[in-house]
Amino acid sequence: MSDINHQIILNSRPVGWVTPENFKLVEGTIPEIGDGEILTRNLYMSVDPYMRGRMNDVKSYVPPFKIGKVLEAGVVGEVIKSRNPKFKEGDVVVGNLGWENYSKSNGAELLTVQRGVVPLSYYLGVLGMPGMTAYAGLTYVTNAQPGDVVFVSAAAGAVGSVVGQIAKIMGCEVVGCASSDEKVDYLINELGFDRAFNYKTCGSIAKKIAEICPKGIDVNFENVGGEIMEAVLWNMRDFGRMAMCGMIADYNNKKMAPGPRGMMIIIARRLKLQGFLIYDNPACNAEFIQKATGWLAEGKLKYRETVAEGLENAPAAFIGMLKGENIGKQIVKIA
Amino acid sequence: MSDINHQIILNSRPVGWVTPENFKLVEGTIPEIGDGEILTRNLYMSVDPYMRGRMNDVKSYVPPFKIGKVLEAGVVGEVIKSRNPKFKEGDVVVGNLGWENYSKSNGAELLTVQRGVVPLSYYLGVLGMPGMTAYAGLTYVTNAQPGDVVFVSAAAGAVGSVVGQIAKIMGCEVVGCASSDEKVDYLINELGFDRAFNYKTCGSIAKKIAEICPKGIDVNFENVGGEIMEAVLWNMRDFGRMAMCGMIADYNNKKMAPGPRGMMIIIARRLKLQGFLIYDNPACNAEFIQKATGWLAEGKLKYRETVAEGLENAPAAFIGMLKGENIGKQIVKIA
Repeated sequence: MSDINHQIILNSRPVGWVTPENFKLVEGTIPEIGDGEILTRNLYMSVDPYMRGRMNDVKSYVPPFKIGKVLEAGVVGEVIKSRNPKFKEGDVVVGNLGWENYSKSNGAELLTVQRGVVPLSYYLGVLGMPGMTAYAGLTYVTNAQPGDVVFVSAAAGAVGSVVGQIAKIMGCEVVGCASSDEKVDYLINELGFDRAFNYKTCGSIAKKIAEICPKGIDVNFENVGGEIMEAVLWNMRDFGRMAMCGMIADYNNKKMAPGPRGMMIIIARRLKLQGFLIYDNPACNAEFIQKATGWLAEGKLKYRETVAEGLENAPAAFIGMLKGENIGKQIVKIA
Repeated sequence: MSDINHQIILNSRPVGWVTPENFKLVEGTIPEIGDGEILTRNLYMSVDPYMRGRMNDVKSYVPPFKIGKVLEAGVVGEVIKSRNPKFKEGDVVVGNLGWENYSKSNGAELLTVQRGVVPLSYYLGVLGMPGMTAYAGLTYVTNAQPGDVVFVSAAAGAVGSVVGQIAKIMGCEVVGCASSDEKVDYLINELGFDRAFNYKTCGSIAKKIAEICPKGIDVNFENVGGEIMEAVLWNMRDFGRMAMCGMIADYNNKKMAPGPRGMMIIIARRLKLQGFLIYDNPACNAEFIQKATGWLAEGKLKYRETVAEGLENAPAAFIGMLKGENIGKQIVKIA
């Protein structure tokens, strides 16, 4: 074990798009732990769209990252020292830790997971926060029913790819959009989407949706916002439900973008738009992990990762994910 | 009884703001009725914001008005001829009839109301569609609870004034905005709103709301859209609910206006925005009429009308209502 703890700190706040200069790789030391604490050697970390919001100095549902401090992410780590009776050396834990080789924690919000069931990185994706978000939004928020037409934006992403597959398992008709033909092929031929299209090359998104969803949309799982959300809104059926999960199209705007035109349609079609965060439904998470582990084993739930090698590549992986370069879940392998 | 049936027809479709030239007063004849039909002498008619939408040639939840045809409105009329066993001469009925002195109807969607309980025009306002809309939105849609901070836009209007008073009866803290100091005075000193402001003179609407709702808003009853909705959105508390009832700010736009900026707040604060129409909750209407009749008798529910005299003044009354010139419900007295 090296004495150096490589860490990535927030060097400056982005204005508009995130750049590599917003990050800095530094050499820290391996922390000493006190009573009740543990030390983890970090194996995998996650880069997720919501982190873009934390780079701004704005109070929100999670506090902003601080300049000069180590960034945080979902991390899978191995416990290498423990002075906390709940953890022993060799345990594998998942939770919010640093962009670094070694993290100190009191363990309060860490979950211990079993080795050997699925690859450990899955606990950052299909069995982690993105998967739980997909499940909670589709079931608890929209109450999707068999036969419903479900639309998913950013459908090849970490959340969208799980939304679409769970909707298929539930007996829905599933339609999605993504940013490349390769992703569209993945959605239809690997994940079993009924229909999908490349929103960058399709012309009018609203017309494209009307063409491939002639009955309209019952349930929308909103990951993107902006013009895609507007096009979906205009294609919603009476009493449609929209799970508001993310607005990645807006995260790198310097100014707040206007909302969709034609909001009157919310009234005319009696739509329900509901924002949600995964933290609000803790009971739902255990239910999901149990179901999803079964679906993975049966081959009903497919999962793909894009893995960046090495902590030093985490900023590039994060920026690429914001630009939609990954298919499936973007992971960084730290060790 | 004169032989002339004065009628107002749609002369042309408005582009942007409605003008008197969009209407035409014509002299029709009194219709002959057939089996199953009735003839009404119309006493009062209602002008309501939703009618602006029907003047456009756009398919929506109610079909558009037709050029050259008599316009429709909520009307209180007296049955003067009946060949329908459900109605007898002298009955007073409420329902969707023409902008005219005499209407023929099969009675299918008409409601018979009692004389002598309240002024008959009340069935077009506080005991009619606007009152029912207020009640359904506040109870069934937002599930407002005692102690909730309830915000109402267009608060001195036909719907808003009832929303605020019912919310007070339910034990909520009620805040509203309106377009003149006279209306603000009416809200606070006559209707019992806790706080209210003139959105035309207050400067930043978002800052004004933050100042007078320091805890934020739990329930918003949206009548206006546009910049008021944006300001409200930014002041919603976690898990806030928004009953989407109307967007009068947008009805006279030539192009669809963009939605509120900062829609990400729907996610961060886990808001629920729900569109509704009064037609969707028929069970709620009888429940409301019973309660509201009691509240009126006890003086808990106050009601004001602005009455235009004469069918020929209906277009001006309608245009004035769209501009916010009335306080309380705008009614046209036909006979």
